[in-house]
Amino acid sequence: MATLANDRFLRALMREPVDRTPIWMMRQAGRYLPEYRATRAQAGSFLDLCKNTELACEVTMQPLRRYPMDAAILFSDILTIPDALGLGLYFEEGEGPRFRKTVRSEADLDQLNAFVAADDLSYVMDAVTAIRRELNGSIPLIGFSGSPWTLATYMVEGGSSKDFARVKAMAYDQPQLMHRLLSLLADAVADYLSAQIKAGAQAVQIFDTWGGSLSASAYPEFSLQYMTQIIRQLPRESEGRVVPVIVFTKNGGQWLPSIAASGADCVGLDWTTDIAAARQQIGEQVALQGNMDPAILYASPSRIRDEVAAILRSYGRGSGHIFNLGHGVTPGVNPDHVKAFVDAVVELSPAYH
Amino acid sequence: MATLANDRFLRALMREPVDRTPIWMMRQAGRYLPEYRATRAQAGSFLDLCKNTELACEVTMQPLRRYPMDAAILFSDILTIPDALGLGLYFEEGEGPRFRKTVRSEADLDQLNAFVAADDLSYVMDAVTAIRRELNGSIPLIGFSGSPWTLATYMVEGGSSKDFARVKAMAYDQPQLMHRLLSLLADAVADYLSAQIKAGAQAVQIFDTWGGSLSASAYPEFSLQYMTQIIRQLPRESEGRVVPVIVFTKNGGQWLPSIAASGADCVGLDWTTDIAAARQQIGEQVALQGNMDPAILYASPSRIRDEVAAILRSYGRGSGHIFNLGHGVTPGVNPDHVKAFVDAVVELSPAYH
Repeated sequence: MATLANDRFLRALMREPVDRTPIWMMRQAGRYLPEYRATRAQAGSFLDLCKNTELACEVTMQPLRRYPMDAAILFSDILTIPDALGLGLYFEEGEGPRFRKTVRSEADLDQLNAFVAADDLSYVMDAVTAIRRELNGSIPLIGFSGSPWTLATYMVEGGSSKDFARVKAMAYDQPQLMHRLLSLLADAVADYLSAQIKAGAQAVQIFDTWGGSLSASAYPEFSLQYMTQIIRQLPRESEGRVVPVIVFTKNGGQWLPSIAASGADCVGLDWTTDIAAARQQIGEQVALQGNMDPAILYASPSRIRDEVAAILRSYGRGSGHIFNLGHGVTPGVNPDHVKAFVDAVVELSPAYH
Repeated sequence: MATLANDRFLRALMREPVDRTPIWMMRQAGRYLPEYRATRAQAGSFLDLCKNTELACEVTMQPLRRYPMDAAILFSDILTIPDALGLGLYFEEGEGPRFRKTVRSEADLDQLNAFVAADDLSYVMDAVTAIRRELNGSIPLIGFSGSPWTLATYMVEGGSSKDFARVKAMAYDQPQLMHRLLSLLADAVADYLSAQIKAGAQAVQIFDTWGGSLSASAYPEFSLQYMTQIIRQLPRESEGRVVPVIVFTKNGGQWLPSIAASGADCVGLDWTTDIAAARQQIGEQVALQGNMDPAILYASPSRIRDEVAAILRSYGRGSGHIFNLGHGVTPGVNPDHVKAFVDAVVELSPAYH
């Protein structure tokens, strides 16, 4: 494999000195880009796009041609594991993900497929390999997975949910069954991320999108402990370099000290957290990723630049900050506003290093 | 007016000694009750129900016949003010609230109706009067309003929203316009709550349902300062007794010290906040309300009882806690489980006083 021309993302994750704050954007390969929409139309369904190595590689590269991002992220779906376990993932137009089967009993659990990531999600590993070849050592590639709790919410509810009634009823009323499901998922996620690393992922992020729906006491039991377990199972190095782990619990701002103790190298923050306060709390232990409100991208380029400046000032001097949004970029955003966002980080951040 | 037979809710709000922890439940008059669904069917639309004094009073009383609640809450909609301002509120089945007009420009703002709560929302004041008569001094009545920011989200978006793109674009890009709207709403809410107090409300709650969608730096500017302003404008006493104010910012757990400094007597907590930590942070300044995850009501009665015990233990000894859910009760909940919830508070809390 080629050496890495730009490693400031990996260096910042380890809180090593950098020349400027690195940046990437959650969902940077996505619907806000016309070229993405064109490729998506060519592929057929969203799942067809994920499973087509060439096109998944193409959409991963698209934002990199427009913006000087410091990392690429694997293009895939968060629900590949439950699909491989046999639940039958599909997408209804405008409705979000759905499963043909759900997991609500011991019997449902017993019927899940055995899972070996390298075999059962070989299309993901093929995409990782293809993207690494295409990146050709320019910037690092991030692999990812949903957290066990986040995957479980979809598997129990059968799709997206507003109040998580079924999955929480299971957690609160049948904790043994829920823990059996979460254990199985933790092993699957660890295997999945390990396989991505083996295929070429140079950092990994665990998306705990729905951990923040849990109560303060239920979060450590049903989400955090399984992410901690996964992190322990991951290879610490690959290609002679540490593979950093990012944990992002949306709405987890009240639980930063416990998240920082998970073994992650970096904690993702959403925009409700004051990044200065977060740095004071956990900045000696981990790097911080985030945390601009994605809705700022609907404002003017000059307002976007002001917000970037405020976040940089708030984090302050030194390494350990990876600039990002506090959640994925939304489909209605103007690509020129993303350019203003990325340019502002590139231009304003050197003063802090 | 009759003297108050049970005033432990009002006493706990002022952190005065009580014999047990008082309890009420957000959305306690609601769809989980079959008798509510029957009255609702009789009324016609949801708005018809709100505007029918007799039936609004009836649904307010329904949960009190089943459970030993320590407070009643006015049955009304959160969007009565925008409706009175001329936006034309309506409800589409299964879709949530919608407005016929939106507010997205100075011209839209200029076209809003003048607003005098006692005249333009006289049906609300009639309901307050009727409910007080019906309560006949048994327990206190809570009045309420949405916060200016929360009302503004619906007025700008034209209904519910997932990512608040339009309203945030306005806040970030046209802050003067947004502040003009929020100022107008703050005056309207202060007038509305004052009129409710004059009509008989004995405590008031400001529902800042969407304040928690703002960034850490935008929350004080676009939500909290207007709630603070409203609290300053409210009459401190009525009927010879303090009228306590509760502020509830959902997802506001990271901002408790600033919320406690708003002048509110009580801060509402959602279930993501550890109530022991919250008491340590702000418990010397304000009472705390909450904070059981409403989804616990889908679990078994014994699990519900365990959760109530854990929250009581977590808050600890002494007054200043009003038991509640961390958000409204959801329609699918079994009324018997609500009974288990309320009974647990009644039975387990005296040990802490």
